[in-house]
Amino acid sequence: MTQHTRIEHIGKPRVLIIGGGFGGIELAKSLRGADVQVVLVDRENFHTFQPLLYQVATAGVEADSIIHPFRKIFNDQENFYFRLADVQQIDTEKRMVETSIGLIEYDYLVLATGATSNFFGDKEMEAKAISMKSLEDALTLRNTILQNFEKALQVADEEQINSLMDYVIVGGGPTGVELAGALSELRKHVFPKDYKELDFCEMDIHLVQSGPVLLKGMSEEASREALKFLEDFGVKVWLNRRVKSYDGYTVYLDSGETMISRTVIWAAGVSGAPVSGIKPESILKGNRLLVDVHNRVAGYDDIFAIGDIAAMVTEANPQGHPMLAQPAMQQGRLLGENICHMLAGKPMKAFDYNDRGAMATIGRNRAVADLKLFKKEIKTQGFTAWLIWMFIHLISVVGFRNKLVVTMNWLWSYFTYDTGNRFIVGNKQENIPVEETISHKAVV
Amino acid sequence: MTQHTRIEHIGKPRVLIIGGGFGGIELAKSLRGADVQVVLVDRENFHTFQPLLYQVATAGVEADSIIHPFRKIFNDQENFYFRLADVQQIDTEKRMVETSIGLIEYDYLVLATGATSNFFGDKEMEAKAISMKSLEDALTLRNTILQNFEKALQVADEEQINSLMDYVIVGGGPTGVELAGALSELRKHVFPKDYKELDFCEMDIHLVQSGPVLLKGMSEEASREALKFLEDFGVKVWLNRRVKSYDGYTVYLDSGETMISRTVIWAAGVSGAPVSGIKPESILKGNRLLVDVHNRVAGYDDIFAIGDIAAMVTEANPQGHPMLAQPAMQQGRLLGENICHMLAGKPMKAFDYNDRGAMATIGRNRAVADLKLFKKEIKTQGFTAWLIWMFIHLISVVGFRNKLVVTMNWLWSYFTYDTGNRFIVGNKQENIPVEETISHKAVV
Repeated sequence: MTQHTRIEHIGKPRVLIIGGGFGGIELAKSLRGADVQVVLVDRENFHTFQPLLYQVATAGVEADSIIHPFRKIFNDQENFYFRLADVQQIDTEKRMVETSIGLIEYDYLVLATGATSNFFGDKEMEAKAISMKSLEDALTLRNTILQNFEKALQVADEEQINSLMDYVIVGGGPTGVELAGALSELRKHVFPKDYKELDFCEMDIHLVQSGPVLLKGMSEEASREALKFLEDFGVKVWLNRRVKSYDGYTVYLDSGETMISRTVIWAAGVSGAPVSGIKPESILKGNRLLVDVHNRVAGYDDIFAIGDIAAMVTEANPQGHPMLAQPAMQQGRLLGENICHMLAGKPMKAFDYNDRGAMATIGRNRAVADLKLFKKEIKTQGFTAWLIWMFIHLISVVGFRNKLVVTMNWLWSYFTYDTGNRFIVGNKQENIPVEETISHKAVV
Repeated sequence: MTQHTRIEHIGKPRVLIIGGGFGGIELAKSLRGADVQVVLVDRENFHTFQPLLYQVATAGVEADSIIHPFRKIFNDQENFYFRLADVQQIDTEKRMVETSIGLIEYDYLVLATGATSNFFGDKEMEAKAISMKSLEDALTLRNTILQNFEKALQVADEEQINSLMDYVIVGGGPTGVELAGALSELRKHVFPKDYKELDFCEMDIHLVQSGPVLLKGMSEEASREALKFLEDFGVKVWLNRRVKSYDGYTVYLDSGETMISRTVIWAAGVSGAPVSGIKPESILKGNRLLVDVHNRVAGYDDIFAIGDIAAMVTEANPQGHPMLAQPAMQQGRLLGENICHMLAGKPMKAFDYNDRGAMATIGRNRAVADLKLFKKEIKTQGFTAWLIWMFIHLISVVGFRNKLVVTMNWLWSYFTYDTGNRFIVGNKQENIPVEETISHKAVV
């Protein structure tokens, strides 16, 4: 395709942002009022508040509560243009990006493409496990969980029932830990009421973590308490184990153990989601782009990268910054300022990460938090940590109306242990008898 | 398939209900505590509050607000069993129903399958128009509207732009009228902010009605005012016109006029959604089943039908009752009582429809209502009618939490003219350039 897309040239330098995650959004906001044309391209028409995807997957909040359409966010920003498109290739010579809707020219290009699940080359796992990176992933998991129980009602064989009721979560980072906690709350308070014909003592939740601790990167206390909370909830945590393979039915661990489950959730690793056209020498391990302290991609003057896709390798951060919302947002904000400085002929500011800490929630009123406030470290676990987690996530969910809806959902689910989002829509598997899909054992 | 599904026999007569619409739900509730086993089969795991589907389609309320999972509704009803399945065939001799998950036996069968869109044999229309009968239809329409505008941004040719921005609604009943009103509100208050690059003077909303009035069956005043309200909103109403054909691009009316639109919404006719296995002589015109005053299907002792699928033909109602929520709910409730009477050897009560009237809303603060309260007829149009409409729909949306969310959404959209649900998910069309899909005019 060689056609250009129709985007008016407004006689100002065009900053083309690829990806509307935390970084892309903050950058676009920070360029409000700047003497540039901001063009955001994303393959969805909405921003996803990723930290709460696991809540959508477990029917805790509505999908609508954690997404926010770009056009609505930037309704009143004059210099903002949005295009719904897949980016295919960058032509760094001609300064244009090839997309599914045609070529888009740029003066400055910002890659904010984020990260994708990294299956470390295991194609079978990639085909059979469910990721937790997009709204569609989360809805797929919700559908799968609900359909599994409907199917389990039709089955006589105990192993088959277990294959439908058991869950294996791979990866003991925040996503894995939060999912395990939410699932175990549902197992205790919600599913037994909905499916009186099933015995939820049979429902196992496995969490497999390759290293010796959960929530690697957080404090020892956080890791230890997270493990304790999960074990209190009856989650089976397998530390120092790697998943060797998964055929859609049996999970094989490298330690020799096996588990039977039709549902494996992959929360084990991510890698950058780069766009082709960038020099190979600028791409580091894990597909991240090497950037300088101004988020400029190595070897380019007019291409920047922010957030998960960017690796700002310094002495203090030999691996780059953690792939979290905070560095992405801070880089986005600073890059907006720096682009204005650059256009005004002023020097750019170097990025200085303000690490505010990390947290994870486990179930309905426990969390672990390592906070950094005013240079002080505060470590807390349990109910207080959960209140802090709740507060911080509430104020972070983009958009006023969404906050009200999310708050109401959370208060409701807190007092009733129950939400109303347990419905199956889209991505449906056919209602075929379970045993036909794998074995041929007779159904009584 | 000859396998039986696994549903415990609890030693009580089994009432098998096919379909969890308004009728099926009320029947199941009315059998609470009765000495029967209630088995509900539906192809979705949730009840849909159909009167508000048009609001989901126009991003007015969240999908989650108008659906309610069956298992949640009947959480605490001991004798209730649910199965997610498609019904394929009834074997009235053996008293069993063949479904996608196996055979289900019954003692009493209640068909509450509702209605489906009736395209009067026009296969091309059926393939190319969007219906408004299910949650998936509504989400498809929402996706289509939003994607149309994204595509229109890429197009130079004026006819092509119009084809994407114009809408043709076929059918001037409540669904057609309410959709036209909601679309025209969005055209005025919401879309121009989201898509500043498009000229919304170019967006036409056509409503085609075969007869001489809108809202046929309502009072003359209601029909007249509905027409006036829509025309005030700039909707182009075509009375006494039928759509002759639609090829996905051009709509041909029988009067010779044509319109260009890629989006035709079919709200023109419904017919019963019967299940095969019922004697042909019990099936009337429009696929409805002939029932007696106890909702018993003609020619059967143990099969009943309620709601849209049932035609209770009497002298007072030669066409059966209107295909609306009220008759379905009232029939469901009475049938529950009658089944108990029957089992106790007592005589059944004849159905007596308590017609409470009808209403339709047009835009954000106008409605028309013909109410029947305490045998008095009240006709009202405008803001008062809208308040009544709002109140009645609020108290009708199943479930306490949903009511809060819907109320909040409505209040929010009332004061801001804006909701946040304008996102595209599932059922996505590819982001391919528009002209390639139909013609090959060059894009500048």
